[in-house]
Amino acid sequence: MALHFHKMHGLGNDFVIVDGREQSVTMTPELARAIADRHRGVGCDQLILIGKSDKADVSMRIWNHDGGEVQSCGNASRCVVALTGAKTIETPAGVIEGSSAGSEVEVGIREPRFGWEDIPLSYAMDTSDLPLAWDGLKHGFAVNVGNPHVVFFVEDPAKVPLDVYGPRIENDPAFPERVNVHVAAVREDGIHMRSWERGAGLTLACGTGACAAAVAAIATKRATSPVAVHMPGGTLTISWKPGETVKMRGSATHVFEGDLDLEALK
Amino acid sequence: MALHFHKMHGLGNDFVIVDGREQSVTMTPELARAIADRHRGVGCDQLILIGKSDKADVSMRIWNHDGGEVQSCGNASRCVVALTGAKTIETPAGVIEGSSAGSEVEVGIREPRFGWEDIPLSYAMDTSDLPLAWDGLKHGFAVNVGNPHVVFFVEDPAKVPLDVYGPRIENDPAFPERVNVHVAAVREDGIHMRSWERGAGLTLACGTGACAAAVAAIATKRATSPVAVHMPGGTLTISWKPGETVKMRGSATHVFEGDLDLEALK
Repeated sequence: MALHFHKMHGLGNDFVIVDGREQSVTMTPELARAIADRHRGVGCDQLILIGKSDKADVSMRIWNHDGGEVQSCGNASRCVVALTGAKTIETPAGVIEGSSAGSEVEVGIREPRFGWEDIPLSYAMDTSDLPLAWDGLKHGFAVNVGNPHVVFFVEDPAKVPLDVYGPRIENDPAFPERVNVHVAAVREDGIHMRSWERGAGLTLACGTGACAAAVAAIATKRATSPVAVHMPGGTLTISWKPGETVKMRGSATHVFEGDLDLEALK
Repeated sequence: MALHFHKMHGLGNDFVIVDGREQSVTMTPELARAIADRHRGVGCDQLILIGKSDKADVSMRIWNHDGGEVQSCGNASRCVVALTGAKTIETPAGVIEGSSAGSEVEVGIREPRFGWEDIPLSYAMDTSDLPLAWDGLKHGFAVNVGNPHVVFFVEDPAKVPLDVYGPRIENDPAFPERVNVHVAAVREDGIHMRSWERGAGLTLACGTGACAAAVAAIATKRATSPVAVHMPGGTLTISWKPGETVKMRGSATHVFEGDLDLEALK
């Protein structure tokens, strides 16, 4: 039996996208993991299943490379908008709005949350200037944009040994659900940042991390909206005003489509 | 413009296969590298281009993940036989013979060479019992089956820190073109082995390495032909008699076929 799919990526964060509206698919963690396998399957960071929705143009479910289901992914949302033309996507985390702008796609992420229990942190503290230090890394800005982030503004992100500090901060008892760690610098052409992602380590680009860094920079008046966020994997443009949802704009690239022999995965 | 391709693997060694007989393709190292990219392209260990041949049923050219062209690959040959039904394949290293046997495919590799200058080694020595030792690893058996290999028979391959010894032996001045390093044990059900591949490091399965280990075991009367060679990625069955070519039999799995947007790779 063959399963039709599309392969897309946003800044190198890559997806196998299956449209469950045009074929019957029963997705399981085992099948998602087999499809995501880069040598014996199709290979992807996340598997996306598009379906019908009563609340939006389409629905979207997301499985990680390891088979675990996750609630939302900004890069995947952009790809689904580009592929289907949907203006609204129902996700387990709520309805996302999207629109195409030339070769780029903009999606609404969510309203950022700043309370210490929203991040979450282990105890009450000033989330806009964390009273915590990891050697030279201090004055962190914590924000939840669907998942927990901490942003450190530094002189030169390229010079921070993030492979050393990332795992230390991610697993610090101050963050009971762990945390995504970013080092960023605001320059004339926007924010330059590098990311250590919770559970994934150093990555080339982090969509919600770009939102977190932009929110932190705008909230602390280091930058004004919209702001370009430059990562090793590419650039996203983030818009945000206090009290509103964060919007992320960037590329969504269709690489190929194909027909998968499901028997081959066994 | 779309490029039609197939994705196959042999023991997890995976290939994008493009049939140049059915479409016009100009392959370059840059295009091969872009297609092989696992996040922004299709993703594969090697890219295979099938073409017409005057000397055989089809011809085959092979590009590594890094864009470099290589002469031969046993796992790729099996996949080309399974995909095209060809019984003979012209490669830059000569014509390979193949045949299907149920769900498996057998291909002839080449006649192994045992001379010290054939491996090559840096100076004359007994290639069937190398007078060299890397701590406990000694009595290596060196053989060239299209590329240079050294096989060490050990008590338990799983207990050898091959990530430590592999790079030391690969780059030892004794091997002027470097070498693929294998640790193997002959048991009742065949040869169990682990591999450190020249330029690739620890791999789940090495086709020519399985041939080298089988030849070494048969030549030293540790095993008789045909012999199963068990690797972490799967099993190959190797046949060989002194003075003849080595034959390798194993799976060739078709995973999917697709149409690649060449514009997306730019």
